Amino acid sequence: MTLTSAPGADPLVLNAPLAADFLARFLVNEVTKVGFQRVVLGLSGGIDSALAAFLAVQAFGPAGVTAIAMPYRTSSPSSLEHAQLCADTLGIELLVEDISPMVDAYCDRHPDASPMRRGNYMARQRMCILYDHSARLDALVLGTSNKTELLLGYGTQHGDLASALNPLGDLYKTQVRQLSRHLGVCAPIIEKPPSADLWEGQSDEAELGWSYDTIDHALYHLVDLRLTDDEMLALGVPADLLRTVQRRIRQNHFKRRPPILPKLSARTLDKDFHYLRDWGV
Amino acid sequence: MTLTSAPGADPLVLNAPLAADFLARFLVNEVTKVGFQRVVLGLSGGIDSALAAFLAVQAFGPAGVTAIAMPYRTSSPSSLEHAQLCADTLGIELLVEDISPMVDAYCDRHPDASPMRRGNYMARQRMCILYDHSARLDALVLGTSNKTELLLGYGTQHGDLASALNPLGDLYKTQVRQLSRHLGVCAPIIEKPPSADLWEGQSDEAELGWSYDTIDHALYHLVDLRLTDDEMLALGVPADLLRTVQRRIRQNHFKRRPPILPKLSARTLDKDFHYLRDWGV
Repeated sequence: MTLTSAPGADPLVLNAPLAADFLARFLVNEVTKVGFQRVVLGLSGGIDSALAAFLAVQAFGPAGVTAIAMPYRTSSPSSLEHAQLCADTLGIELLVEDISPMVDAYCDRHPDASPMRRGNYMARQRMCILYDHSARLDALVLGTSNKTELLLGYGTQHGDLASALNPLGDLYKTQVRQLSRHLGVCAPIIEKPPSADLWEGQSDEAELGWSYDTIDHALYHLVDLRLTDDEMLALGVPADLLRTVQRRIRQNHFKRRPPILPKLSARTLDKDFHYLRDWGV
Repeated sequence: MTLTSAPGADPLVLNAPLAADFLARFLVNEVTKVGFQRVVLGLSGGIDSALAAFLAVQAFGPAGVTAIAMPYRTSSPSSLEHAQLCADTLGIELLVEDISPMVDAYCDRHPDASPMRRGNYMARQRMCILYDHSARLDALVLGTSNKTELLLGYGTQHGDLASALNPLGDLYKTQVRQLSRHLGVCAPIIEKPPSADLWEGQSDEAELGWSYDTIDHALYHLVDLRLTDDEMLALGVPADLLRTVQRRIRQNHFKRRPPILPKLSARTLDKDFHYLRDWGV
């Protein structure tokens, strides 16, 4: 049995029951081995955080999961409704923390800030709140970024990309959809167009320039199968898509790694200091 | 010529001129190779961020360095004075961003939050501001945590531990002092007792329970020379200090690594995806 499909089938099609079970066990193992029993996550109303919540409930039960919706005053009201729908379906606690006062206190000082800067500031404010509740609840912060986003750098460093562990980090967006259907994530959440909801009408696929189906197909062959450029083009991947994903993977590598350190000593933290979290007794 | 001292001498004594030159070159190389010419850093008034500013000016000149002081309303006034003194000495721009409105907007909702939670929230608010200015200025965020702090986990994840690159990350605290004296960091900044200044009268050494001299001596032999417990004790390191640093190094490992991901695919981002930032052409 494999976590992906049978030989010959679409390689992006998951064995959904097995993958869901594996990911729930991953959550239990990684959370309990460091002495925790609970998780906290931001519930945006979108499919990724909904799937993370479903997996978390499978792992810890409804009482072990706290969800936080963190709307800004211009966020779509349907986002909060979908977060509530997801929480109600799962029977988990949903807290609402309005980020508008903190965001406006800063952004009013910087009225020239671009939408991109404001969006990143909002994402980081949400991280601040999530990590504070994680300390209050003695719970680990669950990440909700999928592999497509992580590869393309489609997320805010120290914002939505920040977490203790991320059950979605090795699933492409199209696989997030499969697993969500399998676990029974509410249909309106699965069916709406993906959006970061940082401003009215924002759309992931419009910003990225291609559909997730097309992007994931290219990423799988480039990253997982390590095809050459010629092989990618022979497969029918458009040259401009190939260049774009290669550029984005490269330019956003900094978001996936700890700060760069110089090498002065015998054991440098990001280089040859390999003591594990469970080093020693 | 080595970056540390001559054989037989105290192994924590740096060759200061060589180390300063090496770290300035490190900054130039790492910043320019990704297309940047400027850095931005938080200037707290303490010795670590002062040294980082001195090294940055050596690398980029005063016009290439922007410092930001981010006081909270209960921060010691002397912290801001020392930040100003450092900026004036170097001739760099110092911006002041008061974090009180953002911190109070959130913490007033959570009046039961412990000083630790409030301190971490403040550190993360500073990160939000620093990263926003980094986008505004097209500048990389410079880290200011030293190796002692990184090993002991004495810092806030996604707060003061967040940076693009950190020139101090392979220097123990006692080595930060040596290099600061060599580069001419202002005496009052070098001489005051180290403090995170999150509340009145806070002291690093009181919180940690030992002086930095004692801690660094233990860390060097444990981490860089990889001595066994018996060898550490034979060296005269107190058993409770040894247990404390080992526990802290282990328990804070999570602060030094990206989020934990499950392994489902052929190439998983935190495991066997080793494409570098400068992968490809």
